Amino acid sequence: MERWSEFVQIKEVGPRDGLQNESELISTADKIHWINTLSESGVREIEYSSFVHPKWVPALADAHEVGRRIKRHPDVRYSALVPNMKGLELALEAGIDGASVFMSASETHNRKNINKSIDETYPVLAEVIESAKAAGKHVTGYVSTVFDCPYEGKITPDQVLSVCDRLIEAGVDDISLGDTIGTAVPTQVDQLLGEVLSRLPGEKVIMHFHDTRGMAIANIMRSMEYGITRFDSSIGGLGGCPYAPGAAGNVATNDVLYLLNGLGIRTGIDENKLQEAALFIQNKLEKALPSKSLAYAASQG
Amino acid sequence: MERWSEFVQIKEVGPRDGLQNESELISTADKIHWINTLSESGVREIEYSSFVHPKWVPALADAHEVGRRIKRHPDVRYSALVPNMKGLELALEAGIDGASVFMSASETHNRKNINKSIDETYPVLAEVIESAKAAGKHVTGYVSTVFDCPYEGKITPDQVLSVCDRLIEAGVDDISLGDTIGTAVPTQVDQLLGEVLSRLPGEKVIMHFHDTRGMAIANIMRSMEYGITRFDSSIGGLGGCPYAPGAAGNVATNDVLYLLNGLGIRTGIDENKLQEAALFIQNKLEKALPSKSLAYAASQG
Repeated sequence: MERWSEFVQIKEVGPRDGLQNESELISTADKIHWINTLSESGVREIEYSSFVHPKWVPALADAHEVGRRIKRHPDVRYSALVPNMKGLELALEAGIDGASVFMSASETHNRKNINKSIDETYPVLAEVIESAKAAGKHVTGYVSTVFDCPYEGKITPDQVLSVCDRLIEAGVDDISLGDTIGTAVPTQVDQLLGEVLSRLPGEKVIMHFHDTRGMAIANIMRSMEYGITRFDSSIGGLGGCPYAPGAAGNVATNDVLYLLNGLGIRTGIDENKLQEAALFIQNKLEKALPSKSLAYAASQG
Repeated sequence: MERWSEFVQIKEVGPRDGLQNESELISTADKIHWINTLSESGVREIEYSSFVHPKWVPALADAHEVGRRIKRHPDVRYSALVPNMKGLELALEAGIDGASVFMSASETHNRKNINKSIDETYPVLAEVIESAKAAGKHVTGYVSTVFDCPYEGKITPDQVLSVCDRLIEAGVDDISLGDTIGTAVPTQVDQLLGEVLSRLPGEKVIMHFHDTRGMAIANIMRSMEYGITRFDSSIGGLGGCPYAPGAAGNVATNDVLYLLNGLGIRTGIDENKLQEAALFIQNKLEKALPSKSLAYAASQG
């Protein structure tokens, strides 16, 4: 009935988007062991850290060391968040395969997050994108608050498209559209993807849902009906919502995998290995992660 | 695009299906206060208790007293689970508006749950249904394990239809189809509803999803695309999965309401009142309920 792909690619963002929102610090050795386990799970891309200044994200201050010491699996792309040229320089030294740049579709969110207007952000990112491409790296552009902004409310597809156009023009390979505060319902996915896919080919579009109100799986399902085959998710649902302490952030890789397996869509990911990695980090954080599939699996011993 | 209704009716099953799976006992006075709050939320039906023998469900041993002492809202149907004629007699004394009978689409699950074969169950339920109808009560037939059974695995739509046919023949007003162990994904909803709706009118079909793997909202979304307008849910996601300690059970009313509000579908339910009722029972149980919308709302004070 739908135009579903037989294969969906999951990008594991737990080590970056997950950990940056956890208050508990994880040791460098534990991160390395954990990322190595993730590498063996069959996931094809891991965003393993961030080269944002440690002042802003102390939990990821060891990005360089982690990048140098993880065991690289030949089938996995190891990418990292890179805010500027200084970050890119460090990231290249650490041996990244991919760089992720980021900005917001909302002017206010962009200012609060990056301390620059949207217009001021483009030239900074354009230089990073150009240099990363020149170094032969894959570059993804994250666009946040594509549905709703915690400061401005509704964001229009036009606002999102305007940012996408300029990132594509600057040379990104693909774009990840983020429901940063986890407010969207499937009709909002309809509205956005209806517009975005009239301008961008589906294979360049990654959907990045947060599960803050429990809507992420329904939104992923709806995105697949538009032919989207790439999703970001975080193991166990690691990482919270910076705007709501105690609430959920990134959709859980375990829940996405349960859905895809149930639909008969291949991912290449081994459920048991994924669960091993999820339980490892859950034990280190000493708290139950938000993934319902993980809670079920954990209850079965 | 879809044949969505403008109005969806939620049946609140937390006081019955939720509490029966919680180990913590709630006092009769607290239940009454809580159900009264739910009554004021705008929900149109509350399954407020069970007249199963207290030996089996000690948490609901006060069904009679609760039924007699709650404040009845004129727009709310107060129903209760009724296993047999003895249960019906007590339920009628307690002043129920509706009786719910139950059986399973799986032979093994039915035997484990009711201690009878499916064939042995029909005459017992037929007598209850007939007597409840004769007393002027609404009667709902619950069919459990309509997708998967914890003992038998996959259940076919034919097995489900065979049970539905006999319940309808016995005189139930409507049928609630239960994903008892919360395993279904939307393609399973396609398979089941494709068959069921060829035999039963949509308005007689209620979908009852558990969120044990986080799939319930996506399944509700899919069910609405088939024109289903009635769903069972439990406030806050109260009640666990009897087959998986620590895992989620009934889908949370709060999450369903978030979805429906976002889609612009009316329910008549006041979000704040619902949240008040959810926080009340969460505080009594002294643990976070599984609803992600509730966790978000609670974080906002």
